[in-house]
Amino acid sequence: MRFFSDNAAAACPQVLDALAKANRIDTAYDGDQWSQRLDGAFSELFGKQVRALWVTTGTAANCLGLATLCPPHGSILCHEVAHIEVDEAGAPGFFTHGAKLTLLAGDGAKVSPDAVEDACARVRDDVHQVQPAALSITNATEYGLSYQPDEVAALGEVARRRGLGFHMDGARFANAIAFTGADPADVTWRAGVDVLPFGFVKNGGMSAEALIFFDPAKAEIVPRLRKRAGHLLSKGRYLAAQILAMLEDNLWLTNARAANAAAAALAKAAGDRLVFPVEANELFVRMTADEAAAIRSQGFDFYDWSPGDIRIVTSWDQDMDAVARLAAAIEAL
Amino acid sequence: MRFFSDNAAAACPQVLDALAKANRIDTAYDGDQWSQRLDGAFSELFGKQVRALWVTTGTAANCLGLATLCPPHGSILCHEVAHIEVDEAGAPGFFTHGAKLTLLAGDGAKVSPDAVEDACARVRDDVHQVQPAALSITNATEYGLSYQPDEVAALGEVARRRGLGFHMDGARFANAIAFTGADPADVTWRAGVDVLPFGFVKNGGMSAEALIFFDPAKAEIVPRLRKRAGHLLSKGRYLAAQILAMLEDNLWLTNARAANAAAAALAKAAGDRLVFPVEANELFVRMTADEAAAIRSQGFDFYDWSPGDIRIVTSWDQDMDAVARLAAAIEAL
Amino acid sequence: MRFFSDNAAAACPQVLDALAKANRIDTAYDGDQWSQRLDGAFSELFGKQVRALWVTTGTAANCLGLATLCPPHGSILCHEVAHIEVDEAGAPGFFTHGAKLTLLAGDGAKVSPDAVEDACARVRDDVHQVQPAALSITNATEYGLSYQPDEVAALGEVARRRGLGFHMDGARFANAIAFTGADPADVTWRAGVDVLPFGFVKNGGMSAEALIFFDPAKAEIVPRLRKRAGHLLSKGRYLAAQILAMLEDNLWLTNARAANAAAAALAKAAGDRLVFPVEANELFVRMTADEAAAIRSQGFDFYDWSPGDIRIVTSWDQDMDAVARLAAAIEAL
Amino acid sequence: MRFFSDNAAAACPQVLDALAKANRIDTAYDGDQWSQRLDGAFSELFGKQVRALWVTTGTAANCLGLATLCPPHGSILCHEVAHIEVDEAGAPGFFTHGAKLTLLAGDGAKVSPDAVEDACARVRDDVHQVQPAALSITNATEYGLSYQPDEVAALGEVARRRGLGFHMDGARFANAIAFTGADPADVTWRAGVDVLPFGFVKNGGMSAEALIFFDPAKAEIVPRLRKRAGHLLSKGRYLAAQILAMLEDNLWLTNARAANAAAAALAKAAGDRLVFPVEANELFVRMTADEAAAIRSQGFDFYDWSPGDIRIVTSWDQDMDAVARLAAAIEAL
Repeated sequence: MRFFSDNAAAACPQVLDALAKANRIDTAYDGDQWSQRLDGAFSELFGKQVRALWVTTGTAANCLGLATLCPPHGSILCHEVAHIEVDEAGAPGFFTHGAKLTLLAGDGAKVSPDAVEDACARVRDDVHQVQPAALSITNATEYGLSYQPDEVAALGEVARRRGLGFHMDGARFANAIAFTGADPADVTWRAGVDVLPFGFVKNGGMSAEALIFFDPAKAEIVPRLRKRAGHLLSKGRYLAAQILAMLEDNLWLTNARAANAAAAALAKAAGDRLVFPVEANELFVRMTADEAAAIRSQGFDFYDWSPGDIRIVTSWDQDMDAVARLAAAIEAL
Repeated sequence: MRFFSDNAAAACPQVLDALAKANRIDTAYDGDQWSQRLDGAFSELFGKQVRALWVTTGTAANCLGLATLCPPHGSILCHEVAHIEVDEAGAPGFFTHGAKLTLLAGDGAKVSPDAVEDACARVRDDVHQVQPAALSITNATEYGLSYQPDEVAALGEVARRRGLGFHMDGARFANAIAFTGADPADVTWRAGVDVLPFGFVKNGGMSAEALIFFDPAKAEIVPRLRKRAGHLLSKGRYLAAQILAMLEDNLWLTNARAANAAAAALAKAAGDRLVFPVEANELFVRMTADEAAAIRSQGFDFYDWSPGDIRIVTSWDQDMDAVARLAAAIEAL
Repeated sequence: MRFFSDNAAAACPQVLDALAKANRIDTAYDGDQWSQRLDGAFSELFGKQVRALWVTTGTAANCLGLATLCPPHGSILCHEVAHIEVDEAGAPGFFTHGAKLTLLAGDGAKVSPDAVEDACARVRDDVHQVQPAALSITNATEYGLSYQPDEVAALGEVARRRGLGFHMDGARFANAIAFTGADPADVTWRAGVDVLPFGFVKNGGMSAEALIFFDPAKAEIVPRLRKRAGHLLSKGRYLAAQILAMLEDNLWLTNARAANAAAAALAKAAGDRLVFPVEANELFVRMTADEAAAIRSQGFDFYDWSPGDIRIVTSWDQDMDAVARLAAAIEAL
Repeated sequence: MRFFSDNAAAACPQVLDALAKANRIDTAYDGDQWSQRLDGAFSELFGKQVRALWVTTGTAANCLGLATLCPPHGSILCHEVAHIEVDEAGAPGFFTHGAKLTLLAGDGAKVSPDAVEDACARVRDDVHQVQPAALSITNATEYGLSYQPDEVAALGEVARRRGLGFHMDGARFANAIAFTGADPADVTWRAGVDVLPFGFVKNGGMSAEALIFFDPAKAEIVPRLRKRAGHLLSKGRYLAAQILAMLEDNLWLTNARAANAAAAALAKAAGDRLVFPVEANELFVRMTADEAAAIRSQGFDFYDWSPGDIRIVTSWDQDMDAVARLAAAIEAL
C-alpha cells in the first residue's frame, strides 16, 4: 500500500487506450494529427489562444519555459524549497545557460508579493548585480497548498511592475484546480502567468506533460529549444495522444479529485498532526520515528521528510480501502 | 504507401504489450524492476559488463554520451553530414557547453582513419586552438552504409593513439548489424568504441533509446547529466520495458532484417540509379523531378534529397506488396 | 578626500616604472620573460611549487579558479554576501557553465566549519539534488575581517572530508596578511586551500591580479580556459611586470600595511560605532543620514552601505592628514 | 630583428604617457572621465552616434560582440580561417553559450556575398537545423587583404536580406583603413556592419581594444555581459586613456601607415613569391625551408606558415633599416 509518490502510480486506462489508437503511421516529430490538436485543445480549456507543446518531464517543461523568461545573466525568484531549486539537479542553470535562482522564504512553500518586492528592492540596478528577470511559483506548492486566483493575481501585479516573467510550475496544477475549483484561466493568464508547465504524469499520465505559453508569440523559439535539448521525440504522437486523452471529458480533473479526496480523508484523520493545511494530494504529518515505524509495520509506505515529519502522497488510483485503513492507523496512534 | 521515414512507422505490438505489462505501481524514476534490468540485458548482448540507460531520443543519447567524452573547450570530429552536425539543432553545443564539431569529408558519410589523423595533425597543440577530444561516427551512416568491424577497429586505433573518446551514433545500429552480421561486440567495444546510443525508435520502438557505456566507470556522471537535462522520466519503467521487449528473442534484429529486406528489394530495382550501396534501410536514388512525380502519382511517398536524388527509408513493418509495387514502378521508369 | 573604494586609488609608482621597463619587444601572450617568472616568484613566496597566472580582474581570477573546482552540475558553498554571489554579475554561473552557489550565513561575512558541514548534510546524495563541489571564502572578508590560519585549517578539514575544492578569494589577501601577520603559506595551502586569486589592483596595482594554484597539476587546463574566456592578453608582459613589481621587496605588504594603518586610525575614532572589528582596510560605521551628510559636507566621500551604516575603504596611498581629519570628524559627531 | 608578430612590438610612447596622466584617483570601473569620453570620441570618428566600450583582448571584443548578434541556438557564418574559428580556443562557443560557426571558403580569407548566400540557402528552415544568425568578416583579413567599402556593402546587403547580424573583426582595422584610404564609416556602418572590435594592441597599444556598436540600442546588454565575463576592469581609466591617446591626432592611422609601409617595402622585394597581395601589414611568402633558414641565419625572425610559406608581420615601430636589409635578403634568394 504505497503512499510514497504519485510518480509511482500506474498510468490510467484511457492513456493506454490512446497509445493503442495512435499506434499507426503518421508524420514524425510533432507534425502528426494529435500533436497538431494540442494548441486548440488547451486554447479551449483556457479560453484564449495559447501555444501548447508536449514534453516528457516536468523538469524539461519548467526549464524550457524559464529559458524563455530569463536570460543567462538574469535571476529567477522562487521559493527556497521550489522544485526547480531543490529537485531538478541544476537544470534551470543548464537550460538558461547560467541564470541564478534567488530564494524566497514563505509559509507552506508559498510565495508572497512582499517577498518578491523585497527581493527586487534589494538588488542594485547596476552591472555588478544579477537582475531579477522572472518569478516562479508552484501550484499546488511543494507542501501541498493551492493558490487562489487573487493570490496569483497579486503576484502577477508585482511581476508586471517589476518587469518579471511569470512562471507557474504546474506539476500538480490539476490537484490545485480540483481543490480551489478555480477557473484555470483565472489562476493563470488572467492573473498574469506567462508560462505553465501543466503536469499529467503525476495524475495518471505515462510520459507526457504539456508546456503552455499564454502568449503564443513568446513561444516561437521554444520548438527550437526543445529540439536542441533533445526533447523532440520522433514519434511525438504518442505524447500528444496521452495529453488529449487526459483532457477528454476532463479526465485530468476527475483523476485529481480522486487523489485529493484520498488526501482529504487522511487529513481528517491526521488532525493536529498536520504541518500544513491539505489543499491538494500531499500531506505532511508530524510523527515520531517510532510512530512511523508502527504505521509502516502495517504495510504502508511513505517518505520520511524532515526529522519528526513524514510525507504522504495520494494518487488518482488510490485504493480507498487502503486509505481508510491508513486513516484508522493514524488516528490510532 | 509511405517510404518517407522510419520515424513515421508505428510501434511494434510487443512494445505495446510491454507497456501494458509495466502498467502497475513501482518505484519512480529508474528505481523500478525494468530499469534495473537494463545493465544486465545489454551486458549479456555485448559480452561484457556495460552501463545502459534509457533516454527518449537519439539526440539526447548522442549528446549525453558526447558530453562525457569532450570538454567544453574541446572538439568532436565527425562527418560533415553527421546527424549531430546537420539535424540536432546544435544540441552537441548545448550538452557539451560549447564544444566544436570539426567536420570530415568521406564517401557515403563514412569516416576514414586518414581523415581523422589529418584533422588531428592540422591542430597546433597550443592554447589558441581547440583540441580534438572525441571522434563520432554513425553506424549505419546517414547515407545507409554499414561499418565492418575492421573498419571501426582502424578508427578505434587512431582514436586511441590521438587520445580521442570514441562515440558511435547507433540510431540504426540494428540495421547495420542485420546487414553485416557482425557480432555487436566486434563492431563496438572490441573496436575501441566507448559510447553507443543504441536506437530502437526507428526500429519499432515507441519512445525509448538505450545509451550504452562500455566502461561503466566512465558513465558515473551520466545519470546526473540526464536528470539535469530534464531527461529523467518519473515513470521510467515504461521506457525500460520497451527496450527489454525489443531485446527479447532478438526482436531488434528481426525488425531490422525486415526493414533491410525491403530496402534490398528496392535496391535491386533501382540498380544503377543508386547513389550509394544499400547496406541498411535507406536508399538514395537518382531520379529527375518528373520521374519522382510519376512515382508519387502512384501513391508512394518519399523525401526529396538533393536535386536529382530522392531518399527512400524502409521500416520494420513495411508492407512487402507495396515494396514490390514501388520496385516495379522504379524499374518501369 | 575619497574613502570610497580602493579601486579608485592610483597605481603606485613602482608599477608604472615596471611598465616602462617592460616596454620592449618580447614574445606575445605569456611567452615573455616576465610572465615566465611568475611561477617561480610565487613559489618562493608560498614555499612550495605553485602555478601562477596573470589575469586582469578579480572576477576572472575567481571564476577561472572555481571552474577548475566545480563541474557544471555542482555547487559552490559561499557566504551569502560573498563577492562571487553579490557583485560578479553571475560570472560564476558563466564560467562554470551553470553551477549553483549555495549560500551560508555567518557573522562578518565569515564562513564557519559548522555552516559548511550543515549545508553538506542537508543535501541528499541522489541525482535530483545538486551536490556540493567547492567551498569559497573571502580573505579579508567582504566586511573587512581576516581569517587566522587555524580558522582556515578548520574549514580546510571540512572541505577535505566532504570532498570539496577550496577556493579563497584574495582580492584583499594582502590586507589580511598585513593584519594577521600570518605566513601566506599557513593561511592557504597548509590550511587546505587549492586556489587563491591574489589581488593587486586594490593594493596599488593597475590591471593585474595573480591566480595561484597550489597544485600545479590541477592548473593544467587553466591557460586554455583563460584563452577561451578572452583573458589571454597578447602583450601579457605588461601584466606580469606589474605583479613582479608588487612582489619585489614585499611592496604588496608595505602597501597593505599603509592601507590598514589608515583604517586602524579611523577605527579608533569610530569606537562603538563600528559594525565589525576592523581587520583590514574596510570600516562599516553606524551613522545616521544626517551624520553622514555632516561628514560629507567636510569634503569626505564614502559609500552608503545599508540604512544607518556607511562603508569606508582606505587605500595604499591614503593621505594621513586626511585620515586624521576624517577621524576627528567622526569623533566629533 | 623580429618580423614575427605585431603582438610582440612595444607600446608606443603616447600610450605610456597617457597611462601616467591617468594615474590619479578617479571613479572605478568605467565611471571615470576617460571611459566616459569613449562614446563621443568614436562617434566623431564614425560620423554617427555609437557606443564604444574598452576591453582588453580582441577575443573578448569579438565574442562579446557576437554574443549580441547570435543566440545560443544560432550559427555565425565566417571564413574557414577566421581568427574566431582558428585562434580563439572556442571562445565564440563560450560567449554565445554554444552557437556554431559555419565555415565559408574564399581566396585570401575573404568572404564573398555568394558564399554567404549559398550557406544560407543550404539550411532548411526547420527546428532540426541550426539557423544562421550572424556574419563575421575580418578586416584586414587573416591573410592581409583589405575590404573596399563596396565589398563590405555587398556583404551587408546579403546580411540584411538574410536577417544576419554583421560583425567585422577589426584587429587590424587600422591597417585596412591605412591601405584603402576609405572613410571608416563607409567600410562599416554605411555598409551594414553592426559591430566592430577596433584593434589597438597590434598597432602600438598596450592592453586596450575598443568594441564599437553602431546602434547604441543594441549595446545595452553589453556592459552586463562584459562584467559577467570578468572583463570589467576596476581601474578602467587605464584602458580608456590608451584608446584616447591612440585616437588623438589620428595616431592609430599614423602607426598603421608605418607598419603598412614596411610591409609594402618587403612586398616589393618578395615579388612573385607573394601568396597574397599585400594590403595591410602581413606578408605570406613562398620560401623553401632552406631559403627560410638562410634568411633566419641573417638574424631575421618570422613564422613558418604552411610548408613552403612563411609569414612576416610588420609593426608600427619597425626599424626601416632592418626592413631594407630583410628586403635585400629576400631579393638575394
